Amino acid sequence: MCESHAYIMKDGKEELFLENVDVIKPEEGGRLLIRSIFGEQKVFDGHIREIALLKHRIVLEK
Amino acid sequence: MCESHAYIMKDGKEELFLENVDVIKPEEGGRLLIRSIFGEQKVFDGHIREIALLKHRIVLEK
Repeated sequence: MCESHAYIMKDGKEELFLENVDVIKPEEGGRLLIRSIFGEQKVFDGHIREIALLKHRIVLEK
Repeated sequence: MCESHAYIMKDGKEELFLENVDVIKPEEGGRLLIRSIFGEQKVFDGHIREIALLKHRIVLEK
């Protein structure tokens, strides 16, 4: 499968935020709207640090 | 295959920027460093408008 998972980088450690990410949409006010392939939707108050699709990783940070 | 392609949204139209994207890394100064699975690397002076992985689409804009 191709899905990537979103992690939050916090104090040098990564914490899982949302699995099987489909959509990432930056919104006004510096937030990210993130939706999984199952329709689960979460908002993260921060920005993208790095996306590495071959590694299936989306790293977010405040 | 899982690769997504990066497009630039410009005047309501989308223009292909880079195929088979692996890495996207926002940099200081509001630029995006984008690298393909083949190691081709480009810099885009703008931001991410939307990422839709199931549609294999990464949409950028100034």
